[in-house]
Amino acid sequence: MRIALDAMGGDHGVRPNVAGALQAIASVPDLTVVLVGDPALIEPTLSLSTYPAERIEIVASAGVIGMDEKPVEALRRKPDNSISRCWQLTATKKTDGLVSAGNTGAVVGAGLFARRFLKGVRRPGIATLMPTEKGSCVIMDVGANIFPKPSHLLQYGVMGSVLAKHRLGVEHPKIGLMNVGEEEGKGHELVQKTYALFRNGPFADRFVGNVEGRDVHKGVVDVIITDGFVGNVLLKHAEGVFEFIMGMIGTDVVGVLSAEKAIAAQAVQKMIDKFHYSTAGGAPLLGIDGVCIICHGSSDERAIANALAVAAQDVRTQLNDHIVEELAKLPVLSDED
Amino acid sequence: MRIALDAMGGDHGVRPNVAGALQAIASVPDLTVVLVGDPALIEPTLSLSTYPAERIEIVASAGVIGMDEKPVEALRRKPDNSISRCWQLTATKKTDGLVSAGNTGAVVGAGLFARRFLKGVRRPGIATLMPTEKGSCVIMDVGANIFPKPSHLLQYGVMGSVLAKHRLGVEHPKIGLMNVGEEEGKGHELVQKTYALFRNGPFADRFVGNVEGRDVHKGVVDVIITDGFVGNVLLKHAEGVFEFIMGMIGTDVVGVLSAEKAIAAQAVQKMIDKFHYSTAGGAPLLGIDGVCIICHGSSDERAIANALAVAAQDVRTQLNDHIVEELAKLPVLSDED
Repeated sequence: MRIALDAMGGDHGVRPNVAGALQAIASVPDLTVVLVGDPALIEPTLSLSTYPAERIEIVASAGVIGMDEKPVEALRRKPDNSISRCWQLTATKKTDGLVSAGNTGAVVGAGLFARRFLKGVRRPGIATLMPTEKGSCVIMDVGANIFPKPSHLLQYGVMGSVLAKHRLGVEHPKIGLMNVGEEEGKGHELVQKTYALFRNGPFADRFVGNVEGRDVHKGVVDVIITDGFVGNVLLKHAEGVFEFIMGMIGTDVVGVLSAEKAIAAQAVQKMIDKFHYSTAGGAPLLGIDGVCIICHGSSDERAIANALAVAAQDVRTQLNDHIVEELAKLPVLSDED
Repeated sequence: MRIALDAMGGDHGVRPNVAGALQAIASVPDLTVVLVGDPALIEPTLSLSTYPAERIEIVASAGVIGMDEKPVEALRRKPDNSISRCWQLTATKKTDGLVSAGNTGAVVGAGLFARRFLKGVRRPGIATLMPTEKGSCVIMDVGANIFPKPSHLLQYGVMGSVLAKHRLGVEHPKIGLMNVGEEEGKGHELVQKTYALFRNGPFADRFVGNVEGRDVHKGVVDVIITDGFVGNVLLKHAEGVFEFIMGMIGTDVVGVLSAEKAIAAQAVQKMIDKFHYSTAGGAPLLGIDGVCIICHGSSDERAIANALAVAAQDVRTQLNDHIVEELAKLPVLSDED
């Protein structure tokens, strides 16, 4: 299988991308990585290593979209940028998917422009995995669709539960709707309508109802559906609060120990590594024909390698076929929903 | 000064409320607490202690709004419930404010029904304090107004910065708008319009622009403005993620120690106490004529005592007068905003 990697994406230039690609082909037997970007930057980095030449390809692109550029404008101004080129390769089936640590808005935007949505999909969304007391939980959407319609959230529930099944191995995923209270009738129009669509739809048996912010890490559900605004705030808050607490653990707990300080520090480091975003392997943009994994801007080579491995896995498990199959069970939705 | 306490509010009945009232009058010299509820339940609990009789009063009310009842219906069905009675006492100036650990929706709803908004206020909102690397930060709104207008958020910025000044002692509070990215132009219509109102208004010098979920605990701003849906999810998420991480610290860090296990466990407990909601003293509903502090449903006597002390402080610092004064600096806003 072949995955396009945006070699120019992320805060650290080509180096972690190239290193991540080499690490990925070493651990994923059937993977070929297509490095997309400026050959003048990619080739020198690549030449420092030995690797099976047939499993690394380079496709030239011109122009890089900066991490802080406005996506729509930048995509228009630089039509041959590395992100758009990755999408072209995927849209024309030259690759099975793409991985990028570049400007998230541009990755999503270029994907939407390509308009190669999976059959039945209204709007793609970004899913992410959050750690819970029982393992992991899918949260969708975390930023692709900040003002969605109820039908979008309904589809996210379906796509998210396919991810929970094929990525996390949950046979019968339970879906919860993020809300400000558990009782039916809580929240604004979007969540009330979404609630009704779930309750009265073919996936009612998977739908447990509303969940709240405090439930995210309890593992009460396998999939949490929310609009991209709330999901994005939540995702970044989780990152921030984790950093904040671990910092205090370092000073207020590890700091007061003496003989066992090193053991405690090691245990804390292990926890930090376990929950670091680089372990998760990026966030899939679901609903697009082709696998797309979006990585954190500050991804290191481990993060890129994990994202490539996860992309390969989603191709292997035919995640998208399962999504199309499940979405087909939904009734035809009105445009207003 | 006199504060009405909803003696029936919360998950644990009158006991923590009565005990919290006694604790509060012992530590706040000029405070009288008016216990509102069923005298048949309050009096026996009260009779177990000795206290200065002139500083505890009982006002009878009939009917309690359950924690899971639908606020609007329940308020209508039980007009003489303890929450509404607390508001009546405050609206008629018999008390300077109220504290309740009861049904949050009912506390807000009864406050809105009373319609005694502070001069210039469009919609009251709930503020809360979140711990940061540099101290605390006000987040507003966290659940009173889940689909606000831009002008509401603008006013929350003003009210929140008055709270930051008079409660936290920040001379020149900085205000941030919760969004999905830092750059101007990010987010949906609500945040874009709110951004413009701040940028072009009299508080532009306090407004630092957009902040993201990961900034909450960094202390980059003193006030974060958001709609009540996002704020509520965030508040509950903070609670949940803290519990989740501290649980893991217990097993994965403290659990692997031997000689210094007790020291580490003690340090962890100290951190848990420091950030427990009972320390914070509840969340003020701002924009109402009178002080209103909303407590966590599972409040213990310490939480109630702290909330009463905080209510007394807000009366003493004339928080509401300062809010009215600051709001008067805003230009007249159109109804559409």
